[in-house]
Amino acid sequence: MTVRVGIIGTGAIGREHARRIEQVLSGGKVVALSDVNATSAEAVRAEIARDARLFETGEALIASPDVDAVLVTSWGATHEQYVLAAIAAGKPCFCEKPLATTAEGARRIVDAEVAHGKRLVQVGFMRRYDAGYIALKQAVKSHTGAPILVHAAHRNPAVPEQYVTPMAIHDTLIHEIDVLRWLLDDDYVSARVLFPRKAARSHAKLRDPQVVVLETKKGVLIDVEIFVNCHYGYDIQCEVVGEDGIARLPEPMAVEMRLDAKRQNAILTDWKDRFIASYDVELQDFLKAAAAGTASGPTSWDGYVAAITSDACVEAQERAGEAVAITLPARPSLYN
Amino acid sequence: MTVRVGIIGTGAIGREHARRIEQVLSGGKVVALSDVNATSAEAVRAEIARDARLFETGEALIASPDVDAVLVTSWGATHEQYVLAAIAAGKPCFCEKPLATTAEGARRIVDAEVAHGKRLVQVGFMRRYDAGYIALKQAVKSHTGAPILVHAAHRNPAVPEQYVTPMAIHDTLIHEIDVLRWLLDDDYVSARVLFPRKAARSHAKLRDPQVVVLETKKGVLIDVEIFVNCHYGYDIQCEVVGEDGIARLPEPMAVEMRLDAKRQNAILTDWKDRFIASYDVELQDFLKAAAAGTASGPTSWDGYVAAITSDACVEAQERAGEAVAITLPARPSLYN
Amino acid sequence: MTVRVGIIGTGAIGREHARRIEQVLSGGKVVALSDVNATSAEAVRAEIARDARLFETGEALIASPDVDAVLVTSWGATHEQYVLAAIAAGKPCFCEKPLATTAEGARRIVDAEVAHGKRLVQVGFMRRYDAGYIALKQAVKSHTGAPILVHAAHRNPAVPEQYVTPMAIHDTLIHEIDVLRWLLDDDYVSARVLFPRKAARSHAKLRDPQVVVLETKKGVLIDVEIFVNCHYGYDIQCEVVGEDGIARLPEPMAVEMRLDAKRQNAILTDWKDRFIASYDVELQDFLKAAAAGTASGPTSWDGYVAAITSDACVEAQERAGEAVAITLPARPSLYN
Amino acid sequence: MTVRVGIIGTGAIGREHARRIEQVLSGGKVVALSDVNATSAEAVRAEIARDARLFETGEALIASPDVDAVLVTSWGATHEQYVLAAIAAGKPCFCEKPLATTAEGARRIVDAEVAHGKRLVQVGFMRRYDAGYIALKQAVKSHTGAPILVHAAHRNPAVPEQYVTPMAIHDTLIHEIDVLRWLLDDDYVSARVLFPRKAARSHAKLRDPQVVVLETKKGVLIDVEIFVNCHYGYDIQCEVVGEDGIARLPEPMAVEMRLDAKRQNAILTDWKDRFIASYDVELQDFLKAAAAGTASGPTSWDGYVAAITSDACVEAQERAGEAVAITLPARPSLYN
Repeated sequence: MTVRVGIIGTGAIGREHARRIEQVLSGGKVVALSDVNATSAEAVRAEIARDARLFETGEALIASPDVDAVLVTSWGATHEQYVLAAIAAGKPCFCEKPLATTAEGARRIVDAEVAHGKRLVQVGFMRRYDAGYIALKQAVKSHTGAPILVHAAHRNPAVPEQYVTPMAIHDTLIHEIDVLRWLLDDDYVSARVLFPRKAARSHAKLRDPQVVVLETKKGVLIDVEIFVNCHYGYDIQCEVVGEDGIARLPEPMAVEMRLDAKRQNAILTDWKDRFIASYDVELQDFLKAAAAGTASGPTSWDGYVAAITSDACVEAQERAGEAVAITLPARPSLYN
Repeated sequence: MTVRVGIIGTGAIGREHARRIEQVLSGGKVVALSDVNATSAEAVRAEIARDARLFETGEALIASPDVDAVLVTSWGATHEQYVLAAIAAGKPCFCEKPLATTAEGARRIVDAEVAHGKRLVQVGFMRRYDAGYIALKQAVKSHTGAPILVHAAHRNPAVPEQYVTPMAIHDTLIHEIDVLRWLLDDDYVSARVLFPRKAARSHAKLRDPQVVVLETKKGVLIDVEIFVNCHYGYDIQCEVVGEDGIARLPEPMAVEMRLDAKRQNAILTDWKDRFIASYDVELQDFLKAAAAGTASGPTSWDGYVAAITSDACVEAQERAGEAVAITLPARPSLYN
Repeated sequence: MTVRVGIIGTGAIGREHARRIEQVLSGGKVVALSDVNATSAEAVRAEIARDARLFETGEALIASPDVDAVLVTSWGATHEQYVLAAIAAGKPCFCEKPLATTAEGARRIVDAEVAHGKRLVQVGFMRRYDAGYIALKQAVKSHTGAPILVHAAHRNPAVPEQYVTPMAIHDTLIHEIDVLRWLLDDDYVSARVLFPRKAARSHAKLRDPQVVVLETKKGVLIDVEIFVNCHYGYDIQCEVVGEDGIARLPEPMAVEMRLDAKRQNAILTDWKDRFIASYDVELQDFLKAAAAGTASGPTSWDGYVAAITSDACVEAQERAGEAVAITLPARPSLYN
Repeated sequence: MTVRVGIIGTGAIGREHARRIEQVLSGGKVVALSDVNATSAEAVRAEIARDARLFETGEALIASPDVDAVLVTSWGATHEQYVLAAIAAGKPCFCEKPLATTAEGARRIVDAEVAHGKRLVQVGFMRRYDAGYIALKQAVKSHTGAPILVHAAHRNPAVPEQYVTPMAIHDTLIHEIDVLRWLLDDDYVSARVLFPRKAARSHAKLRDPQVVVLETKKGVLIDVEIFVNCHYGYDIQCEVVGEDGIARLPEPMAVEMRLDAKRQNAILTDWKDRFIASYDVELQDFLKAAAAGTASGPTSWDGYVAAITSDACVEAQERAGEAVAITLPARPSLYN
């Protein structure tokens, strides 16, 4: 069965997903497109999805009987409404992060999905599909013994001036928030932020770098360095210290060269290259589940928990050095 | 456009390719199956390709108007006849190695394709599609300067008793023969084989390990260690020494662990895992070219040259220590 | 000139230093020995330093006109008195850590040395002489730009039951306390300790592992994982994140092997092997300075600052999560 | 006991050894110096060995009753006569390579030492004292199983015009010739040289790079790449392939940095830095044995075998591609 996909939002990421479905993945077809900018939707139809129909609104696209499943890749503030509409229509829905711009919004989605009684939503936390993280999780499970500490880093060469301190949580740490919960199969109970001196390349409205310390229910202590002006490259590090040993996220593949008196391996500089393969895998997973009328991978609940945790981390930034408690509501059984 | 694929030979590799086309890749559909063992073909239809039609002979499958492109994954001795039939039918054809069991057979395919006037054949040399080799080729092109030496190794943990000395060329070195030509954009002019003492685990009819030394037209000297009873793992190494520096084939991704007083990364033990991703990429490339009525990737000519080179290497095994000349006919312009 | 050395305390470390001076290093000779256990001193004379004279007390040894310089390798609680006596005698003195068992005691030594007006004391912080740390310091100076963050770890496979929580500071972290000050050319302003859940192998009176967070005057944020039941090996890690890049302490030399489906390098398991070469270098440095009637390397002031910092860290253990301020007196000009 | 050392030849290497004995090592003293250039000897006395006496000839130095042991660090062509004189005087003698400029000369030294009945000569093959090679030998003994293949490389950034093809053997490969015999505890039976095209940076009278293939009595096949215009650095590689696994010579210690979109470790560029620590260890070994009136480490026999092997390799260069047999006389029991 071929899943007939409608895409709401045809900017960079929507276009990329359209290309994946049409040219890379198996089992899907882009049949519907919608964007507030009709020219953009038209361009994606012309270049990538010739057979797709254009819709004036996301809601109309969702309602179309020709659409089996929905991709929400529009502007973040509109995610909630489209996801809720997809749930109302009973259609599987892949939603790029954030699931909603507030924890309350994410909660409404969770409630709607729970009321529906079956999973329909996959949130676009692609790191869970990264071969490195998957191998790391397997190594922890098989070899290191129960985790006690995690040392992580999220480094970016530079950010524009509009990137202000809370964005280090909402746009950057958000990925570690989700993937470490998944990696550890655990939940957070507190967050704390520690600031060293500001890096010289940090903009006026940004305290960079910073170290976010998270504690989990099982007692794991996590430190994540966020350094978005690290200059040297885009670099994601993760090391899990367990009872018996340590496992480390693999470096991206790179040719070792001996040149100019250096043994050297290239480091990526563009975040888009780091998890490029993961986008394929996550979307294939979506198509496979959608063919069965449901959803797989990161859930609405995961999106909701990420929102709650992010809010606590931002508060922790404002109360530098103090631990901010993270309290989660009971997890609906749908997500067990 | 969806390419309608017929598969001749539904053993392990044919079945895997069927699965790829049906479940992983974009743009193809398995519509026809044929195998001398009808039960095998029926099983693939039942489990993977429900809509496929079974054919009693490969020739009948090739002749079917419902088949756009052909995969030849049957027993090696039958490859030549099916590939020739596909060319005669003007249909794109992916053929697993060997293209033919003799250089003369491969030559007949080349001649038929040249007579047809357009590329139709892709040979299953999947290493050219490995991300590591592609990165290595790029590194050589961009950084090391012109190659002068290549040091390579092809190691396998163990082989069964029926694996005899010439198979180290035909079944094992064959991959280096092709991929190093491609890597260097060069051709071989001589082969020499050097034998150390035999490894204790080597069977009676196998001299293992051995070092094959190849020289190229451009003057590159290549040494390839073949050690198929190396015990410790399946390990493919390749290092290119150029005028300005050295580049080395990346190791397969593995989690670095600290355990039991060792920093350690797993080494693969099964050859099937090493180039697993490359099979996807090569077959996607085939589907893409087949949709345009032609073929891409490794050519009939590459298969023919590999056969000539293999024959010289086997002769070099028999005349241990001596250089055996490799003389290639003129390359038809179709392959430039 | 050959420096005539007297050694107070002939236990394991005193004996090792005697061996170094007699058999490895240049420019020194062991002429005097003293230990509360006369049998121990006699054994070192018999086996290593045949020409040495035995003294009943450390004070008598220090007073001997045949002794040019003194090594204090006795029980920690006696260090202060011998170092003060050596200063009073105007003789260069190498003192193993701790310089004194209290910050006040260390202060008395600083004051005595300052009153003497010339450096006479070297404290046994051997890591400053480790080739790896020296290379790291050079890399930071030359390449990474000004430091902003340091991530460090001090891991030991196991500790005996008498090793209680504060010893993680006094016996373990003490080395990072000194070497990171030296590495960064900086001083601490606060300490904070964070505890994950306790490791299963941790004894009843030990909270292990823990993360000590130190802030420096220049605004560098340091996290040091201390994990003395890490099981897998003795492992010292240090990574400096600077404005332009990152530098990492080299791993100890180890042969890379491919065995049993693993690429592997041995990790040390005994702390005594990790800095073995540094002891030679520090003591050679002492002999060289002693020949000129003075001292080099880590100062009394360094020992004093380490004592103040340790006290703050122990307090921080007791007030888990809170930052404890570290206030240093003015540095006497002798130590600039 | 302090060994009173006389040094014949006070050029760069003789001066360095004087410095070692006076300032770094234990148990020796430089008491005599001699050089054809009296100014050079006087300078070493003035700067390093104030108490040394100058001798007009090496023979006079050797004859002096104040000299216990001799270092021959003069021009290569004079080594034989001084070593023979030292043996005649019954004095331990350290001789830098070559032991003699011809195999016949080395043989005369062997015969003299055998006639003397006790070891007196250590040849300056310092690699045997390198911590990396020692660890590699241990790894092979403990882990890899019996060796079957060795892949080695000796790379130098550049050489001057006077460095001609045979020097690649006499000055460069000579180190591998000795250290691999020692590593494998084996002897050579044949040599073969294979040439790729000449590197662009290679001078007119030099064929560079080249691959020397050696076979041993035990059947080990060794390939050594010699590339003295490799441009990128000074790089010594050695990999031993055994029955059960592989061990590799460690890289020299280097700080891993992340800079400029590269993970990078410095590669040495000056050969003098690569084995710098080994010179200390070899000379300490000499002093220790000399104190007992004998010699340790690489023997006259090793020097003789290296000379025979070198001659065969040079012949193999002239007969490119052919195997040249290496036949050794019976080994005197003194060297068992």
